[in-house]
Amino acid sequence: MSSNFMNTTRDQKFILKEWLDMNTVFATDRFKDGYTVDDLDFILDNALKGAKEIVGPSCEDSDQIGCKFENGKVITPPSSKDAYFFIVNNGFAGSNVDPDDESALPMTVVWALNEYFIAANPSIQTLWLANSGAAGLIRDFGSEELKKIYCPKMYSGEWAGTMDLTEPQAGSDVGDSTTKAIPTEDPGVYLIKGTKCFISGGEQDITDNIIHLTLARIEGAAKGTKGLSLFVVPKYLPDANGNPGEWNDINCAGIEHKLGHRGSPTCVVNFGEEGTCKGFLLGNPPGDDGAGAGMMQMFKMMNEERLMSGLSGCALAASAYHNSVEYATERIQGRATTNPKAGRCSIIKHEDVKRMLMYQKSHIEAFRAMVLSTFWWVDIENYSSDPELHQLAKIFLEVNTPIVKAYCSDVSLQCISEALQIYGGYGFSEEYPVAEIYRDARIYPIWEGTNYIQSLDLVGRKMTMKKGQVFAAWMKHIQDFVAANKEAPGFEKEFEIYVDAMAKYGETLQTLMALFATPGMAQQYATRVLHATGKLWAGKLLLEMALIAQKRIEELGTDHFDYPFYAGKVASARFFIKNIIPELTAFLQVAQNADTTVLEVPEEIFFV
Amino acid sequence: MSSNFMNTTRDQKFILKEWLDMNTVFATDRFKDGYTVDDLDFILDNALKGAKEIVGPSCEDSDQIGCKFENGKVITPPSSKDAYFFIVNNGFAGSNVDPDDESALPMTVVWALNEYFIAANPSIQTLWLANSGAAGLIRDFGSEELKKIYCPKMYSGEWAGTMDLTEPQAGSDVGDSTTKAIPTEDPGVYLIKGTKCFISGGEQDITDNIIHLTLARIEGAAKGTKGLSLFVVPKYLPDANGNPGEWNDINCAGIEHKLGHRGSPTCVVNFGEEGTCKGFLLGNPPGDDGAGAGMMQMFKMMNEERLMSGLSGCALAASAYHNSVEYATERIQGRATTNPKAGRCSIIKHEDVKRMLMYQKSHIEAFRAMVLSTFWWVDIENYSSDPELHQLAKIFLEVNTPIVKAYCSDVSLQCISEALQIYGGYGFSEEYPVAEIYRDARIYPIWEGTNYIQSLDLVGRKMTMKKGQVFAAWMKHIQDFVAANKEAPGFEKEFEIYVDAMAKYGETLQTLMALFATPGMAQQYATRVLHATGKLWAGKLLLEMALIAQKRIEELGTDHFDYPFYAGKVASARFFIKNIIPELTAFLQVAQNADTTVLEVPEEIFFV
Repeated sequence: MSSNFMNTTRDQKFILKEWLDMNTVFATDRFKDGYTVDDLDFILDNALKGAKEIVGPSCEDSDQIGCKFENGKVITPPSSKDAYFFIVNNGFAGSNVDPDDESALPMTVVWALNEYFIAANPSIQTLWLANSGAAGLIRDFGSEELKKIYCPKMYSGEWAGTMDLTEPQAGSDVGDSTTKAIPTEDPGVYLIKGTKCFISGGEQDITDNIIHLTLARIEGAAKGTKGLSLFVVPKYLPDANGNPGEWNDINCAGIEHKLGHRGSPTCVVNFGEEGTCKGFLLGNPPGDDGAGAGMMQMFKMMNEERLMSGLSGCALAASAYHNSVEYATERIQGRATTNPKAGRCSIIKHEDVKRMLMYQKSHIEAFRAMVLSTFWWVDIENYSSDPELHQLAKIFLEVNTPIVKAYCSDVSLQCISEALQIYGGYGFSEEYPVAEIYRDARIYPIWEGTNYIQSLDLVGRKMTMKKGQVFAAWMKHIQDFVAANKEAPGFEKEFEIYVDAMAKYGETLQTLMALFATPGMAQQYATRVLHATGKLWAGKLLLEMALIAQKRIEELGTDHFDYPFYAGKVASARFFIKNIIPELTAFLQVAQNADTTVLEVPEEIFFV
Repeated sequence: MSSNFMNTTRDQKFILKEWLDMNTVFATDRFKDGYTVDDLDFILDNALKGAKEIVGPSCEDSDQIGCKFENGKVITPPSSKDAYFFIVNNGFAGSNVDPDDESALPMTVVWALNEYFIAANPSIQTLWLANSGAAGLIRDFGSEELKKIYCPKMYSGEWAGTMDLTEPQAGSDVGDSTTKAIPTEDPGVYLIKGTKCFISGGEQDITDNIIHLTLARIEGAAKGTKGLSLFVVPKYLPDANGNPGEWNDINCAGIEHKLGHRGSPTCVVNFGEEGTCKGFLLGNPPGDDGAGAGMMQMFKMMNEERLMSGLSGCALAASAYHNSVEYATERIQGRATTNPKAGRCSIIKHEDVKRMLMYQKSHIEAFRAMVLSTFWWVDIENYSSDPELHQLAKIFLEVNTPIVKAYCSDVSLQCISEALQIYGGYGFSEEYPVAEIYRDARIYPIWEGTNYIQSLDLVGRKMTMKKGQVFAAWMKHIQDFVAANKEAPGFEKEFEIYVDAMAKYGETLQTLMALFATPGMAQQYATRVLHATGKLWAGKLLLEMALIAQKRIEELGTDHFDYPFYAGKVASARFFIKNIIPELTAFLQVAQNADTTVLEVPEEIFFV
């Protein structure tokens, strides 16, 4: 894989410095003595440099050598360890978000730069990204002792953290987990017994210890997700000095041979085969109602992982895009339609190639805006003292999270496929980087809750939460934006299209709400509702950024070195509104057609 | 890869026995003494059995071992050779279409069963499928001597045939080829010098000889595609007995390491490095105008390869679909929405899974109908003595070919992605078959002329041919069908939606024709016009088949063993019309929006 995966920090800087109000975040008590907006250029450029030069070169090993499994051990390619420790030791991973670290950065900034490291080597994201989320669970829900032992080493990346939910028979339906936790005489200490699968980084040879955040059911607890509790289950029990001590009866039974992410060990993990695996409960054991706190606790981490999945789709699509731009610039083929006599030209001059580039560019900028604006709300929720903003943060986090996860990860696949198509026959060759990106990115619609699970979350929970008030408040930020800007000079046509689409979207939801009285209808429409909502939101974000860019163009003029960037932002919005937003009209018709085929057909039609 | 890639010949039998008028084909002079419609059941079942049991098991080797390149030689996995010779020796490949073979089959039937062999091992399709096309060029355009030497051995598969168009600097733009042909004293014999790349089967260890159908420019011929001629260039020159003799100065310089089709050697081939590579001209050398016949000749084969690419998309999507049905039936997860108290259920009971299955099923049946109905017209063109049918055949072949190639190969990727999604985490594992299918199928939108080239062919040539009369005649078959059937009981709603979509499609084309006066507009819309046309055509085909199926249901009743099949055909049409056809409405809006962003933006916006 080429290391030219990402050529610019420009759009991230625009988002952080010209669009999102980062001053509000930097002014909070948490950050007021630390960095400022003025530091962002250096922070982003430095991260991009490290990602390109140090982490990027490890990508080929990760994909081509991959992980090996021998005698119960996972062997990662040698360059993975170096890349991992470059990231964690240079303050890019967990230490950036460690609440006890004075020099930590706002989440919005952290995730802006995480995009570079994910793109640089998608395989190893599972090794460095989960640590801080896992540490955060211990910090939020663990005893003082657990916090003291685990948090510093996990935030620093010295020890890795994993999420252990899935079992062979319990995937999307986590409630069917059978992993057991048996109380010991020691309060808070349980014996864990069970098998987890698809555990990213469940075993590896990079860190001295691996801390499994494991869902299990304490004997006697309720069935389903309600009865699950969350345990800290270290591979090695920390000794008196806090160093890895006795082996904790955890075995890796194998790793998956995968389509992509080949440098990431995806493990089957057996807990307590010898009956001696200790787990340390987070929070309290189930009371008389048999209800454990495990799922609620895990969701804190899970929501962050979902946003990470959306960003990963964005990162890989951006990597494919930048590569396809480079190829389209270098590849000479054919003559320009508008000037055939000038001789052979770069394929970037062909309208269909430019269309595929615009498709990618506009979507990627929408993805990035979705992800980073959501992390902005995470910062607000975590650190703002403004009660009104706090209230809004809850709304945006609830609604944004499933959309970011599913819309960005789904549509990024289409973007990457367009990038690959630009390469022609070379796109199918693994000598060029896009083939691997095409493989790697296919996981994001699946993991951290499939995109259907996200869609059900949006349609079944978020849209109906507080009798629809939460979603209505979310929609209001789009309506307010449109009301305030629809006369913006030069964007009349775009707003006209957008206003029409908004009305159609509203009509679609009304139509569907009536249909959803029929059992199964909400389920068969959920995925499409999420996509429609994603499109609508993407259009708003692109327009919002385009209006800022247009102002900058007027200030700076077209000869300014930054003109192409701002012109590109305006172009992204125009392209998306005129070419993608009309799809909302089709979805209204689909809703009105109220097809019940899926509900009515017997399964037997699929067997012949 | 599992060998359960295809479970049924039912839909092919429906198409051949209940929908397409195969009696007209079997009644032609060519076939009247051979097979009849009554033989089709055996022919199809037998082909499926061979594909599943003999060819299918070679797929894993092809993908996992792949091709190796050592010392100028290509080493294919051992099972490829057995699978190849099973196909060719059992009369499934070239001999099926050899015009001199009495027992040959109509193209419609041949391609119906080719679907099984392509699905069974997509990698080796390049080894057995091109032979007859290459032989056909020699038969149509070669001297009696060339025909005698090459055709029998190529139709039988003893020798392989390849297409050699692409060069490193000449991909989509074949006219920039630099491979030279230098006349010798021997008329019709030339010395070939040049490098071709991306040559499927350009070198292999399976057949005794490889016959390269190679485009080259005779010294002094015109520039561009106009000046190209086509040559028969054997790896070994046949000796006096017609056996492979002297080596013909052809070297393989390497093979591609690819995303998929890993058992297919994709070669760089050097002709005439020692100045002794002989090529035998097909037809006449360029006259005073410098025009060679090469491109016209090659297009005969190319058109068949384009239909083959569409069928390949269909075959791989069908394979992924059947596998995902099997998985969805076996995988237990969650509870049914409509009956949660019944306990855990197969995921095929979940509405979103059924939706993804219906999406696949309806599209695959449309692809198959597109491909096979087009091959029906090939049979008519080749063998019918009815002048009116002949005339129609030309129209359908012109318009159908680019749509079959691009629409089926593009949309099959989306179908396969849905199949993969049904597997959840297991979809990302190479232990299950869909991951490989996802990789393999990505080539079809690229090779045999990228899908953009197909779109330009449709928009720039086929739609404007004879002042639009050809396309108008093509549209008429849809209009006539609708006029004759729009009152069909039980399909009123479907026809209402379809009629509306037809009107919108017509309005879209009118809108676009005005826009296309602006240079570059046709190019930026071409891909989308092809997709819209594909959707419209797919809807018509599905409705047409559903009407037949509905009649059969009325005849047979719902207790008949074949009921689920016919119910499935009706469901496919209803689902497609109500859920996919509305996308034509969105495209009308896109056309009306007349976006010029792509034409206006400077390339520099992509560099920041």
